[in-house]
Amino acid sequence: MNQPVDADDARHLESLYSPLTQSVRNLIDLVIRSEADDDNVKQAHDLIEQAAHLLGSQVSSEPFGVRTTTDGGILTWGNVAIGMRNAIAPPLQVVHGQDGSAAADVTLGAPYEGPPGHVHGGVCALLLDHILGATAHRPGKPAFTGTLTLRYVAPTRLGDLRVNAWVESESESKTIAVGQITDPDGVVTVQAEGIFIRPKAKS
Amino acid sequence: MNQPVDADDARHLESLYSPLTQSVRNLIDLVIRSEADDDNVKQAHDLIEQAAHLLGSQVSSEPFGVRTTTDGGILTWGNVAIGMRNAIAPPLQVVHGQDGSAAADVTLGAPYEGPPGHVHGGVCALLLDHILGATAHRPGKPAFTGTLTLRYVAPTRLGDLRVNAWVESESESKTIAVGQITDPDGVVTVQAEGIFIRPKAKS
Repeated sequence: MNQPVDADDARHLESLYSPLTQSVRNLIDLVIRSEADDDNVKQAHDLIEQAAHLLGSQVSSEPFGVRTTTDGGILTWGNVAIGMRNAIAPPLQVVHGQDGSAAADVTLGAPYEGPPGHVHGGVCALLLDHILGATAHRPGKPAFTGTLTLRYVAPTRLGDLRVNAWVESESESKTIAVGQITDPDGVVTVQAEGIFIRPKAKS
Repeated sequence: MNQPVDADDARHLESLYSPLTQSVRNLIDLVIRSEADDDNVKQAHDLIEQAAHLLGSQVSSEPFGVRTTTDGGILTWGNVAIGMRNAIAPPLQVVHGQDGSAAADVTLGAPYEGPPGHVHGGVCALLLDHILGATAHRPGKPAFTGTLTLRYVAPTRLGDLRVNAWVESESESKTIAVGQITDPDGVVTVQAEGIFIRPKAKS
């Protein structure tokens, strides 16, 4: 386990990396949709290489993992679904309900495409795995996916989506959760059921 | 449907965008792992904004979709799992067997993290959805995921992985496929079963 991150340092790093990561999300989208002249594309490539050189001047040899802060916060900045510093993450902004439910509104553009104009079925699975899992997390006690079953009942168009999950039943070691993706017309496009396991603390 | 892309143009665009996208993949990783000085991070951010400005000088208003080439090729450059121009895609390089099987070797680093040091369960789902679906695709007849069931039987560490899928049964309109993720020790970490539907051609 890493040393806790000083809470002020964490706030400073967030102010530095959050807009940077947002710019990289935009860049990912533009690399797919660009129709720029060759010279512009080559020059953009050079600039990106320069940026990588600067960011790579000092790097951790480890993935980000999960870190704590001195004021009791938990940093999941590298997480592929919710990570503030992970440009792959839309990011999902998970809102927890008092009843143990979890929800997120998310807008998915060109980088999440599978079938033309539609969200890749595997991205729907990623969103649902994360949001169902979020109902099972306890502070300091991450839950791992045991099984996940997805039913694709209607096409999921790129654009605005809502992802929801609720706890169906739970015990000390596991949570059974259900959830769905809903499009702007209120149509449920994917339904999910998952079993999430909380490993026993090592004694 | 878009006009077919001239085959020479497609080859030229690939030579331009393939290395660019690879640089953006590297950039995504560095944004997560960087420990560079503030000044370097800010300067990198400026360079990325400049690159985005250049790439954004002319853009398609549409996601990439699936395009054909004048020599009969199919371009899926925007696809989130396999897209040459999609920096989110590892990309999966799917190899099709003569028996209808599909396989890919892939290396997943920090950007695909969920639990510390491990691949996010939802990314495993994305890989498996794609590779199982690949057994069901027919030229010009994409298959959509109907249902997908995943069993997470062992932790999937970040690093080298093999993803495999086989056809279990099939009819004209659907394919039932099974598959798995295997780690470098030969341990199967995730098992999957999926039903993939080929929509009837519109007449």
